[in-house]
Amino acid sequence: VAMDGNGDGPRGAPGRDAWSGDTGLLGPVWAGTAGADLLGDAAWVAAMVEVEVALARAQASLGLIPASAVGPIAAAAGTGLPADRLAAAARRVANPVLALVTALTAAVARIDRDAAQYVHRGSTSQDILDSAGMLLSYRALARVETDLGRVSEALARLAQRHRDTAMAGRTLTQHAVPITFGLKAAGWLAGVLDAIDRVRLVRVRLPVQLGGAAGTLSAFHEYARSAGSAVPDDRAAVVRLIGVLAAQLQLAEPEAPWHTRRTPLADIGWAAVVSTGALGKFAIDVLGMSRTEVDEVSEPAGPSQGASSAMPQKRNPVLATLIASAARQVPAHALLLGQCLLAEDERSAGGWQAEWEPLRQALRLTIGAASTAAELAEGLTVHPDRLGRNLALTGGRIVAERLSAALAPVLGRDAVEDMLARTARDAVEHGRSFADLLAAAPELAHLSQGGTASAGEPSLRDLLDPGQYLGVAAELVDRVLSRARDTRRGGRAPAAPSGGE
Amino acid sequence: VAMDGNGDGPRGAPGRDAWSGDTGLLGPVWAGTAGADLLGDAAWVAAMVEVEVALARAQASLGLIPASAVGPIAAAAGTGLPADRLAAAARRVANPVLALVTALTAAVARIDRDAAQYVHRGSTSQDILDSAGMLLSYRALARVETDLGRVSEALARLAQRHRDTAMAGRTLTQHAVPITFGLKAAGWLAGVLDAIDRVRLVRVRLPVQLGGAAGTLSAFHEYARSAGSAVPDDRAAVVRLIGVLAAQLQLAEPEAPWHTRRTPLADIGWAAVVSTGALGKFAIDVLGMSRTEVDEVSEPAGPSQGASSAMPQKRNPVLATLIASAARQVPAHALLLGQCLLAEDERSAGGWQAEWEPLRQALRLTIGAASTAAELAEGLTVHPDRLGRNLALTGGRIVAERLSAALAPVLGRDAVEDMLARTARDAVEHGRSFADLLAAAPELAHLSQGGTASAGEPSLRDLLDPGQYLGVAAELVDRVLSRARDTRRGGRAPAAPSGGE
Amino acid sequence: VAMDGNGDGPRGAPGRDAWSGDTGLLGPVWAGTAGADLLGDAAWVAAMVEVEVALARAQASLGLIPASAVGPIAAAAGTGLPADRLAAAARRVANPVLALVTALTAAVARIDRDAAQYVHRGSTSQDILDSAGMLLSYRALARVETDLGRVSEALARLAQRHRDTAMAGRTLTQHAVPITFGLKAAGWLAGVLDAIDRVRLVRVRLPVQLGGAAGTLSAFHEYARSAGSAVPDDRAAVVRLIGVLAAQLQLAEPEAPWHTRRTPLADIGWAAVVSTGALGKFAIDVLGMSRTEVDEVSEPAGPSQGASSAMPQKRNPVLATLIASAARQVPAHALLLGQCLLAEDERSAGGWQAEWEPLRQALRLTIGAASTAAELAEGLTVHPDRLGRNLALTGGRIVAERLSAALAPVLGRDAVEDMLARTARDAVEHGRSFADLLAAAPELAHLSQGGTASAGEPSLRDLLDPGQYLGVAAELVDRVLSRARDTRRGGRAPAAPSGGE
Amino acid sequence: VAMDGNGDGPRGAPGRDAWSGDTGLLGPVWAGTAGADLLGDAAWVAAMVEVEVALARAQASLGLIPASAVGPIAAAAGTGLPADRLAAAARRVANPVLALVTALTAAVARIDRDAAQYVHRGSTSQDILDSAGMLLSYRALARVETDLGRVSEALARLAQRHRDTAMAGRTLTQHAVPITFGLKAAGWLAGVLDAIDRVRLVRVRLPVQLGGAAGTLSAFHEYARSAGSAVPDDRAAVVRLIGVLAAQLQLAEPEAPWHTRRTPLADIGWAAVVSTGALGKFAIDVLGMSRTEVDEVSEPAGPSQGASSAMPQKRNPVLATLIASAARQVPAHALLLGQCLLAEDERSAGGWQAEWEPLRQALRLTIGAASTAAELAEGLTVHPDRLGRNLALTGGRIVAERLSAALAPVLGRDAVEDMLARTARDAVEHGRSFADLLAAAPELAHLSQGGTASAGEPSLRDLLDPGQYLGVAAELVDRVLSRARDTRRGGRAPAAPSGGE
Repeated sequence: VAMDGNGDGPRGAPGRDAWSGDTGLLGPVWAGTAGADLLGDAAWVAAMVEVEVALARAQASLGLIPASAVGPIAAAAGTGLPADRLAAAARRVANPVLALVTALTAAVARIDRDAAQYVHRGSTSQDILDSAGMLLSYRALARVETDLGRVSEALARLAQRHRDTAMAGRTLTQHAVPITFGLKAAGWLAGVLDAIDRVRLVRVRLPVQLGGAAGTLSAFHEYARSAGSAVPDDRAAVVRLIGVLAAQLQLAEPEAPWHTRRTPLADIGWAAVVSTGALGKFAIDVLGMSRTEVDEVSEPAGPSQGASSAMPQKRNPVLATLIASAARQVPAHALLLGQCLLAEDERSAGGWQAEWEPLRQALRLTIGAASTAAELAEGLTVHPDRLGRNLALTGGRIVAERLSAALAPVLGRDAVEDMLARTARDAVEHGRSFADLLAAAPELAHLSQGGTASAGEPSLRDLLDPGQYLGVAAELVDRVLSRARDTRRGGRAPAAPSGGE
Repeated sequence: VAMDGNGDGPRGAPGRDAWSGDTGLLGPVWAGTAGADLLGDAAWVAAMVEVEVALARAQASLGLIPASAVGPIAAAAGTGLPADRLAAAARRVANPVLALVTALTAAVARIDRDAAQYVHRGSTSQDILDSAGMLLSYRALARVETDLGRVSEALARLAQRHRDTAMAGRTLTQHAVPITFGLKAAGWLAGVLDAIDRVRLVRVRLPVQLGGAAGTLSAFHEYARSAGSAVPDDRAAVVRLIGVLAAQLQLAEPEAPWHTRRTPLADIGWAAVVSTGALGKFAIDVLGMSRTEVDEVSEPAGPSQGASSAMPQKRNPVLATLIASAARQVPAHALLLGQCLLAEDERSAGGWQAEWEPLRQALRLTIGAASTAAELAEGLTVHPDRLGRNLALTGGRIVAERLSAALAPVLGRDAVEDMLARTARDAVEHGRSFADLLAAAPELAHLSQGGTASAGEPSLRDLLDPGQYLGVAAELVDRVLSRARDTRRGGRAPAAPSGGE
Repeated sequence: VAMDGNGDGPRGAPGRDAWSGDTGLLGPVWAGTAGADLLGDAAWVAAMVEVEVALARAQASLGLIPASAVGPIAAAAGTGLPADRLAAAARRVANPVLALVTALTAAVARIDRDAAQYVHRGSTSQDILDSAGMLLSYRALARVETDLGRVSEALARLAQRHRDTAMAGRTLTQHAVPITFGLKAAGWLAGVLDAIDRVRLVRVRLPVQLGGAAGTLSAFHEYARSAGSAVPDDRAAVVRLIGVLAAQLQLAEPEAPWHTRRTPLADIGWAAVVSTGALGKFAIDVLGMSRTEVDEVSEPAGPSQGASSAMPQKRNPVLATLIASAARQVPAHALLLGQCLLAEDERSAGGWQAEWEPLRQALRLTIGAASTAAELAEGLTVHPDRLGRNLALTGGRIVAERLSAALAPVLGRDAVEDMLARTARDAVEHGRSFADLLAAAPELAHLSQGGTASAGEPSLRDLLDPGQYLGVAAELVDRVLSRARDTRRGGRAPAAPSGGE
Repeated sequence: VAMDGNGDGPRGAPGRDAWSGDTGLLGPVWAGTAGADLLGDAAWVAAMVEVEVALARAQASLGLIPASAVGPIAAAAGTGLPADRLAAAARRVANPVLALVTALTAAVARIDRDAAQYVHRGSTSQDILDSAGMLLSYRALARVETDLGRVSEALARLAQRHRDTAMAGRTLTQHAVPITFGLKAAGWLAGVLDAIDRVRLVRVRLPVQLGGAAGTLSAFHEYARSAGSAVPDDRAAVVRLIGVLAAQLQLAEPEAPWHTRRTPLADIGWAAVVSTGALGKFAIDVLGMSRTEVDEVSEPAGPSQGASSAMPQKRNPVLATLIASAARQVPAHALLLGQCLLAEDERSAGGWQAEWEPLRQALRLTIGAASTAAELAEGLTVHPDRLGRNLALTGGRIVAERLSAALAPVLGRDAVEDMLARTARDAVEHGRSFADLLAAAPELAHLSQGGTASAGEPSLRDLLDPGQYLGVAAELVDRVLSRARDTRRGGRAPAAPSGGE
């Protein structure tokens, strides 16, 4: 088989320029969202340069390098460093930093020959790449938090508005007992609040990386002790450098370098899983409720939104589809981030390199999902009539639990459950009305058939009315809305156990 | 419960005997540790019964059921419920709770016919199984925290004792620059502190589950409103039931049922990943340092510990091996727990059932790993002579970075790096001494060859002494030890970013 | 919090005997199926003993040990070896084989003192455990194949019976174009045929393991060369031993030991993923079609099958739920089996141990899923009336594609698609009939409104009839059924590309 | 092709243009290899266009569309379709095909107004994207197979050359018994042969996708039956279309569309896992043998290959590092591909979209790993002196198994194993020579101390010589080499079990 006989790839493409990089063709959930730009190759290059500049600033502020070196380094940072050439060079040394430092040093030298020696001084590739990764993660999670906030506002509005709108609750695919749409939205909302909480928790802990070749900051120290009187207490200055750099980059200060203690990566993975999981739960419920036979909600419409290449009548729930696609993928990237904790020695051969792409993908998909979910939540249309129609679909079987509870004291639990199960089966099998069969049941002769019974006792009609069997759904909605207000004010989810500790 | 009375294993056992259950044959990291008992089938049955009893107590305390029902239910809970029969019955309804409730109800009826109707009243299977799972998780994480505490104490002692013991730092498998064993141990310790922090965070948030059939607590409410004056404010009483049950079980009170908002599961997975990841990092470093050619540490010895079935001379690092085996598996279980966030409707068909075994495995492996790591950390033998011998192995090449830093101001960074790389290559290729080659290098003629140079300038011998190139390793050890003391006092890792925002 | 103050385990349980092992409480998909017994701890012990006996037989047949040793070893194999004690002992050496060999040797010695020395002679733990694992995998996959065969027969009957039963095809949750239930069943069937194909492929390749301490069969060779004339060509005899043992155990003969070449494990994982994936696809479609609003199929009924602990009217699709629970978990176990390919040296420290439980779980879940799917497929009830009702639900919008195709030549593709999309939207928004709106559309005035149009041209009524727009569904069903017949005869799926190679 | 006309890519571009797509900055294992171009966004666009053209050709050949339409469609395919704009458009409909069809149709219309209506006619987005994915997978796997072939050739040479070069075998990190470097290389080779076998198996089965909107080919059929005499047997023609398109694209012909039967994806994942697993095993052994203390192999050198940004003396094993980084990631992508088997209905909402990026990543990483491994295998330097030095490191303890086997007949197995374990421990603890201690042992007084003993019995010196204890390593190497020759000739690994059944 000559699949690619002449091997000319993209037809007629002159040279390799046929390929100018991936821009999200296979990632519609994030293509065109902040996830593309914030985490693209160019953003990584820019962040690495930013770390180099901050490192120069931090060193200068402690007297470790001359203050005069900072200007030229900062100025050179504006120079475009082509990500694709760095990518190609990365192969020789298993990371892209060496080539970046070389290019940046050359650019500085063109501005100020003397300043060039202070580029990256004392540092190692991992310091730069890890710190850049944390910087991008910090920004990405900030964006996620903002969009999760939008989702939570929109869901809170839905929960409030439909606090008392009854609908069918479904377990293992079957109508179970009535719930309210408000409670459903509140459930989605609570998941999103969980996510905001975890994103916040993780974000403020993201640490700067600074350790030098193997985590002792040895070269920084070597330069410091040879600096003489410029740095009176060389050891203290070097230790302080970690905090100063952290402050420069607005990252947390770790108590020690974390070259092979990769907790921050696992934390990010967790925040991404909880975020896309919460949004994914929202999305799959929207998908389920959008099914042609169910039709309880609709996605926001827009020109050609949700169109099909084959079927002109279709309006696909594409936003929920995109969110679900992200939620399905993120746990696998988080798994890789979790596995990278097994990093041997002072730098893992292969483990470190295996983190980068999963980190990007986890964040990108999360940004895309959050942005898409905001659009979905803000534009979701609920069809109350259809909620009611579906709720009535089983002719009252959906409140069999209530009948059971109401009748058990009189008839005994086992007897009433048998009777209800039998009647439900009869109704289904013979296409009869569950209510009619019950009305005819001798066991229920004691019940008033309609209206309200004399002694405040509910009639059979009352008992069969789904809208009268909503438990404390309304109070639960209120509790979640209250938590949402706390979260909006920056509060943390209540964490304390109810019992003492 | 005499599940396997004579316990004589497969053959010749009377009855169903062919199979008497799994006890950890394939899980040596947890077999024989607390993970076996705390999370075995019998423990799950017991926990589910415990939840049923607590639910009765909680309802009685709010007047929802008669106080007289509690005694018989609690008494019946002592009855043995054979896990294997519940397991077989679970197949019919896709969970083991229905059979358990049936059996428990029968047992209560034998004690007090009237009380039987109050077993499980108002509740649904998921309330019981989820709450039991949280109860077991709480206890399992408590055990993990205890053992992580033991590990951290032992590692802190190692870090303190070897604060200044120099050894080779290794990156991408190669000697890089010197570090100290203290810093290495401090790195392991910091990972364990991260784990303790996350275990604590997750544990106190584990919520009770109480929602009834579809999360509205509808049956509880139905019974409450039919209770008349016994429950004056029926809605409030039902809402309070959540908190009262939580207090009974010493779990956290959620603002709403979380039947299909599975954040707690994802949180547990994360805590398990960070814990086994931190311990796994410790283990793989022990494995690497135990290699015959490296031989820097030894596992604690014991009778037939680490023996081989084929090679009498061998003493295998089995503790580290077992820990590593757990650390490799846990992320996959956490992935499943993360994926279960995608739970449709008010109870997922398949999603819920797919959580149980991963939850157990994640916790079991974590308990096993923590217990094994405590044994390893407390018994680890360090061989300082061998650390020294390995450090000297490259004849000074390990401090090339220092030479580079020291000589760059004089010779220029590029020139000195080229010279050092060339000399290192020559030393390797021709089996020459790196130090000798340097001593003969004209570029270095300005350096004093030994002793201490006049103007406080280090001599070549100083520069080549790995013990004089440890950066601020000691201070970093101190910082981690300080954090360990905070953690021991119950404090949280510093989370705030150093810069404002 | 004193959750478990005195640590007395399951409350009120007398001693630790409360726990006698796990029997599937958390794995309802496999509890009570062959997966329990075939893969339980006791089965592993029995298989390891079986390998030891086969090894003695194979060695005796080549003159490597005395023939007289075989009888006593085989006889001793009947002795009960308690799995739980081996499990506890495994912790000391990181595998359960050493304790098993010790116990077996003692048992042989009780029968024949002299024969005892030939137990396990020349071998290493991994030979025994790996070969036992392959033996169990072979049997487990045989069972899976049998049950997949049952599923395929049942699905083939469904596909045949409903070859022409029209129903709604659904894409991205929305009605798309009509399909047939036969085609849907044929799609499930084709997945199952894929699975049978892969299970067969993998099963016959499962290799015996025999390599001795590090894969050179050195101890076997040492004994052989010291055996003198009993083994004339010692090297050849030792090499032949691999094949003879393989034949004894009916496993494949590898060209070399595979201690750290773990392809067979990855293969098993793949077969398990494809199997549970195919069954899971079947299951989630059954779940979707079982939804109360859709109601196109029902699971087989049985006493208390699918009952709910709270809702007497419910009949949950529990079989599909169980299958889905397995299908969600298996990929994670397969991932672990795939990762174990990264096994360092001649035996991985931690990697090997991390394979055992995932192997068991992957197979167990697959056995359970296959057995459950057979029950489901054989008992599935299809509701043709409901299929028809749902198909008609959109009043003809489901055949908009046909209208588009039929009218494009006259009206132009873009115009007709716009018109249809607009009309579909109008129908939905104003609750009008799509057919009526079309009948009134001036663009379609040229169409006969009903009956069959004069020149064989379809009328609007024809065009709107879903039953007349089934494409070549019937032929596709026939093609799949033909492949099913090939598979039943033992044939392989056609693999060749249509183009030459 | 002007993929990104104005968006002029990375170089020095100010503005947004900072980001013009990812080119592998975070994927050094594949950046710069075929994986970049073969699987980049532009390649996907080109492949989709290729499928559209092939579909037109296939339809024309069956009379389903006019032959005259093919030329314009093929001509228009050369037009550049900017991937980034398609990516942005994909968000509206959850896939990039609709925008591509629109653009292609417009391009055709510019050439031949009439031909435009035949673009994509009868088809649906999934037909195009899936077939394009298979096309790219086919080509990617072809590239993988070629590079795996290079790896296997190089490893076969190493195995042959070092067939008898003794070295230390290592299990659980400890010296176990001697092996040969040839056997180690043969083990790597056998893994690569496994991979080639699976890649071949999967590749030729990759099927074309053609099903139309929901798998019935309904629109194709509608057009066919309205074509009149041009297509005499419309049903047969439409069924044949599948095979004709498959032949056009040189893919396999499926018996039915596989819109939601995603076996091919799972198969690709498996081939990728086995491939990168086999290469990863090679890589981690190279990493282990490269450790400074072990130093048994070196990676190929090259200018600045393996350099460090901080340590001028270092030469990192970067190729093995890169391969390991790929091998760690691929199982997670394969997991996602395996999970996509759970695709509901006739097109999964979210499941389908979640496949694309994992498919690309799995293949890209595999291409990168295979290409890198070829470079590594072809350039690997073995240091036989160092192999020998390490082998001697334990002073003979590495052949304790042999002593045990040789002495057991005289002294009894338990006694000899105790004695050897004790002596080994003494040697380690007191820094004594194992050989000397043995020579002084009264139990061994019967052994000749050196030379060859009289009756052909080995002397103690012989027994302690690792080079005389290599088992049948040489024969095993030969067996693997023989399999390699079979594979090179295109043969399949022997699959049949040795025993009948």
